[in-house]
Amino acid sequence: MQWVKGLGLGLGAAVLLALGIILGHFAIPKNAPSVSASQDLDLEILETVMGQLDASRIRENLRELSREPHLASSPRDEALVQLLLQRWTDPASGLDSAKAFEYEVLLSFPSQEQPNSVDVVGSAGDVLYSCRRSEENLTGEQGGPDVVPPYAAYAPAGTPQGLLVYANQGSEEDFKELQTQGIQLEGTIALTRYGGVGRGAKAVNAAKHGVAGVLVYTDPGDINDGLSLPSETFPNSWHLPPSGVERGSYYEYFGDPLTPYLPAHPSSFRLDLANVSGFPPIPTQPIGFQDAKVLLCQVKVSVHNRLQLRNSSNVLGVIRGAVEPDRYVLYGNHRDSWVHGAVDPSSGTAVLLELSRVLGTLLKKGTWRPRRSIVFASWGAEEFGLIGSTEFTEQFFSKLQERTVAYLNVDISVFANATLRVQGTPPVQSVVFSAAKEIRSPGPGDLSIYDNWMRYFNRSSLVYGVVPSLGSLGAGSDYAPFIHFLGISSMDIAYTYDRSKTSARIYPTYHTAFDTFDYVDKFVDPGFSSHQAVARTAGSVLLRLSDSFFLPLNVSDYSDTLRSFLQAAQQDLGDLLEQHSISLGPLVTAMEKFEEAAAALDQDISTLQKGSPDPLQVRIFNDQLMLLERTFLNPRAFPEERHYSHVLWAPRTGSTATFPGLANACSRARDTSSGSEAWAEVQRQLSIVVAALEGAAATLRPVADL
Amino acid sequence: MQWVKGLGLGLGAAVLLALGIILGHFAIPKNAPSVSASQDLDLEILETVMGQLDASRIRENLRELSREPHLASSPRDEALVQLLLQRWTDPASGLDSAKAFEYEVLLSFPSQEQPNSVDVVGSAGDVLYSCRRSEENLTGEQGGPDVVPPYAAYAPAGTPQGLLVYANQGSEEDFKELQTQGIQLEGTIALTRYGGVGRGAKAVNAAKHGVAGVLVYTDPGDINDGLSLPSETFPNSWHLPPSGVERGSYYEYFGDPLTPYLPAHPSSFRLDLANVSGFPPIPTQPIGFQDAKVLLCQVKVSVHNRLQLRNSSNVLGVIRGAVEPDRYVLYGNHRDSWVHGAVDPSSGTAVLLELSRVLGTLLKKGTWRPRRSIVFASWGAEEFGLIGSTEFTEQFFSKLQERTVAYLNVDISVFANATLRVQGTPPVQSVVFSAAKEIRSPGPGDLSIYDNWMRYFNRSSLVYGVVPSLGSLGAGSDYAPFIHFLGISSMDIAYTYDRSKTSARIYPTYHTAFDTFDYVDKFVDPGFSSHQAVARTAGSVLLRLSDSFFLPLNVSDYSDTLRSFLQAAQQDLGDLLEQHSISLGPLVTAMEKFEEAAAALDQDISTLQKGSPDPLQVRIFNDQLMLLERTFLNPRAFPEERHYSHVLWAPRTGSTATFPGLANACSRARDTSSGSEAWAEVQRQLSIVVAALEGAAATLRPVADL
Repeated sequence: MQWVKGLGLGLGAAVLLALGIILGHFAIPKNAPSVSASQDLDLEILETVMGQLDASRIRENLRELSREPHLASSPRDEALVQLLLQRWTDPASGLDSAKAFEYEVLLSFPSQEQPNSVDVVGSAGDVLYSCRRSEENLTGEQGGPDVVPPYAAYAPAGTPQGLLVYANQGSEEDFKELQTQGIQLEGTIALTRYGGVGRGAKAVNAAKHGVAGVLVYTDPGDINDGLSLPSETFPNSWHLPPSGVERGSYYEYFGDPLTPYLPAHPSSFRLDLANVSGFPPIPTQPIGFQDAKVLLCQVKVSVHNRLQLRNSSNVLGVIRGAVEPDRYVLYGNHRDSWVHGAVDPSSGTAVLLELSRVLGTLLKKGTWRPRRSIVFASWGAEEFGLIGSTEFTEQFFSKLQERTVAYLNVDISVFANATLRVQGTPPVQSVVFSAAKEIRSPGPGDLSIYDNWMRYFNRSSLVYGVVPSLGSLGAGSDYAPFIHFLGISSMDIAYTYDRSKTSARIYPTYHTAFDTFDYVDKFVDPGFSSHQAVARTAGSVLLRLSDSFFLPLNVSDYSDTLRSFLQAAQQDLGDLLEQHSISLGPLVTAMEKFEEAAAALDQDISTLQKGSPDPLQVRIFNDQLMLLERTFLNPRAFPEERHYSHVLWAPRTGSTATFPGLANACSRARDTSSGSEAWAEVQRQLSIVVAALEGAAATLRPVADL
Repeated sequence: MQWVKGLGLGLGAAVLLALGIILGHFAIPKNAPSVSASQDLDLEILETVMGQLDASRIRENLRELSREPHLASSPRDEALVQLLLQRWTDPASGLDSAKAFEYEVLLSFPSQEQPNSVDVVGSAGDVLYSCRRSEENLTGEQGGPDVVPPYAAYAPAGTPQGLLVYANQGSEEDFKELQTQGIQLEGTIALTRYGGVGRGAKAVNAAKHGVAGVLVYTDPGDINDGLSLPSETFPNSWHLPPSGVERGSYYEYFGDPLTPYLPAHPSSFRLDLANVSGFPPIPTQPIGFQDAKVLLCQVKVSVHNRLQLRNSSNVLGVIRGAVEPDRYVLYGNHRDSWVHGAVDPSSGTAVLLELSRVLGTLLKKGTWRPRRSIVFASWGAEEFGLIGSTEFTEQFFSKLQERTVAYLNVDISVFANATLRVQGTPPVQSVVFSAAKEIRSPGPGDLSIYDNWMRYFNRSSLVYGVVPSLGSLGAGSDYAPFIHFLGISSMDIAYTYDRSKTSARIYPTYHTAFDTFDYVDKFVDPGFSSHQAVARTAGSVLLRLSDSFFLPLNVSDYSDTLRSFLQAAQQDLGDLLEQHSISLGPLVTAMEKFEEAAAALDQDISTLQKGSPDPLQVRIFNDQLMLLERTFLNPRAFPEERHYSHVLWAPRTGSTATFPGLANACSRARDTSSGSEAWAEVQRQLSIVVAALEGAAATLRPVADL
């Protein structure tokens, strides 16, 4: 029965052939590039990273980083540049490459020969009382030669003398109030307390009333919940000792004051000092509350600050992306401090170093390489006005704007250990939530960081119901040039206070000589579990942004914000605008176009995610997500606001939480008649926002649509 | 011998299995997207397109387009909007989609009730002679109601009267010369000829000397090679008849005058007329040389132009890209003319329609779809100041800047039929050369368009030896907002004169009522072979840009230009700068960095081209090429030059062919002392160029390099 045999053989052959075909097609991987081109987030890697982020290593980092004062451009600051380079080029745990970028920037320091002083003098000029010229050396760390005496950076030198006038927070209102009380301000010394308005603004407001000098002190009510006795303060508690003085930059803008919009290279054009704006107009000096409370009558303020051109470096470390090396996820913090800066900024740098160590180790072992490039940054001279980060954005403007997916800032990583606190633009909300849900909170109870966060800060979203609330980004740290000047989706991550337990304006030893390692170790985060929680949250966000096939940026989350801006405009400004026959109709229409386009894009993406999408298709969608934030930039919107080009997040005066250009223009126009320039500016600002929303919608619509 | 049988079977099985594996791996194609993702230029398709571009169809297009006058916003202009929409939505030869975008823009027209007039008057105001108010109706086409009388668009109304003064071309020098000759200019009427300076500039310069009104005529020496008799001019030759008058816009900037930087939507903010700049300050009227030569003594100029808000549309047609739909190749021309506009702009639109027909037909047949999206544009109101194209760039600023590969402009496609003439930025040189080498020149001999071109315009390149020379882009047509405002690599393609045969400033009937179909058919391009040559060249460039896997933009060709700019600066400005201790050293260094990065990128690309590169890798390189031009933009470089942000191609005063910001700042600083603001501006401009070149180099370097 040959044929049966034959059939049998034929069958066997067919089976073998089929098996072969199956093996051939599935068992042999598709060509390397096109497979790796679909590389996606690996949850095992993520778990490994979370597990390896080590609190005790963060603690050791912090001890080393805060061992000595490291004021910008000081020898110790330079030594830390070397420390970072050495860590990031370590054969076992380093990155692909690391490099220092130096700039020549204008900083301000007190004179060593002529210390700044504040004295109470008698009618004959005889000194009745002298304020401390340095903080009390309570732990042996406040006395070193490298502890810069308290001063107001960029305040001009001068020795004004005059009657002391208490001017509260030194706001415009405060001085107006004094004036209406008939108090003579000409030639006086104004005593103000920190808070309310920016540091430099106090001197600007004072000078308008002929005030000759300004003192700024830290009020125990603002910083210590009222406690002021030595026994109640550091080293006996986390509260600020009576002699503690908050240093700070009194410069109004950011970036090197001499090279706006240009990198501060030695060869770059520099403004003549006479043409520099943004410095305080009159001598200003900060003091402690111990001195503030005894001051009276005639006061003489001697300020001998000097401006100096100094070299300051950023250190950048790169992990090259495996698939999309031209897409950057930036993670940064500044390196310079006012004194030891254990909290500000070393608590952030300690986390940065631990995170780069863990990722670097996986990289060197060959177990992992991100889909996109990761760039770690240690910025210089932040305390003087975000100088290092701003110069970086000025130097690499185009490249960064074309390629950066997001900027993640961790400056002070732990203010206090109660809860996570995140500031950011709407597109990063979802990725932060995803990360925070997966990580256990260090506090009591078995809550996720997300659930714990919601207990402290929450809002009810139109879309999601009650969720943790993201704060909005001001200009308080190095994220400012990235969001305001480059239009890059940005965030700032930290652990912070239980507001029911303290009303402190900020952690008490902020910018003082008492911000030391022991302070953190004993009072801020014993055990460093909050530092670890921040490391894990930031690390998870970083990995999700660098490794996910589809970018985890949710552009339709902008709708929430835009809606609330629109509603605020309608409620608070609607009538006023109507009186001047200005309609918000076009804004409503643009808003709807944006929401429609964003929703449709979400839909298209989730459809695509169900299939096995081509990497190029995904890249196209990802570019839409990455570039949305860019569409809100308009370098001509606020010509007078240096570096502020983002039409949604520029500084806003007044209380209406709406589009800043519109809000500011309205408050200026309010008391003018309809035909005025001020009302024309309102209309211009409205058109700018409408054009921005229409442009954003156009970027989100299907890419070949008209 | 069972075992043998067994072995035999085993062997057979192994072979079959192996065969299966081989079949499975190779015979089953890799997943569809990743194959088509490598789609490249198809030379057969290119040949087909070249073959199908039909001169007689271009001729028919031109006949239809120029049948009636179609001044911007006129009923006939609107009818042509419909014609374009109908062509681009044709089921057999249309595009994927087409749409009209309307704007409300400020145009300027003569009054119908009160015609503008120019009269010679006696001392008693009695009229001794009146200039023609319209051109002579020589072919029956110059007399229709739709022929707009000669006027100077945007010149203010007014009826000045005064002594006539001949002021040559109306340049600053011309008026200074008259002044030094002791000629009283106050209250006079200046008679000027076209050429030398821009239209509006003549009135601006005149007004500075108290001149009351300006006349502008076309001199036979400038336009007719000296011929002026009726027998020597149209319809007997291509020369301008004595009654011919060049119309034109006398507006200084581009875009809608009321909505700078904003799309001119009805709801957009509009400047108060009092705040509009860029209009001629005094009444101005163009006349023909027939009148110019008889003018004498007292002249009265009556201008009754009126400004009107009108609706004007762009028409856009899209072919969706198959692989990278988010990458746009733009091809455009304006639609509006002054009268019949057979040459300007219909010769370009006739080519545009033929090219879109041929491509649309292949598309509808399913034989072809480009790799990238192609966007065809018919711009409105170009003659009044590139208004339609500028509003388009203002409306879609971000989207276009993020995604546009290049802009190709074909306005007047044939000035004359001697040679190709291309203006463009360096990155497009290579693709234009590739196209021109493959196409036969219509002229005598069997030359390629490239070789014929080289006979008329050539230069010796440092890199290539003798090559045809690309002109640089001014602001003469709709490419201006794309290159100057958006930083998109752009080009303008046409056929033009044999300069040894004519010195005409431009083709003689430019902007007159004599620019008609018969004029083109008889004198400019009988047989339309030059139109066909332009269609083929532009079509080939368009296909190469839209279909090539690797973008055919050669960024290292920028080195030639930058070198020549640098050398010019060193030769003409070096000593001057040295005297003021300004060094060009940093510019030299930046230049070297750019050249190095560009050369290395070329190398990397050609290496990649040898292998079978992953589409995502290629996209990354292509993005570097596409975005290079963007890195030369700096919106803060020339705050006073509206819409000009490109630091290499902004308007340049003075003769030194170097970086415009540097050249202009130097000519302003020349006669001031070292410490002056003017010299500070020179240094600022130098730093701006250095930063731009460094930024460009950073964009060209390997994408994960620091």
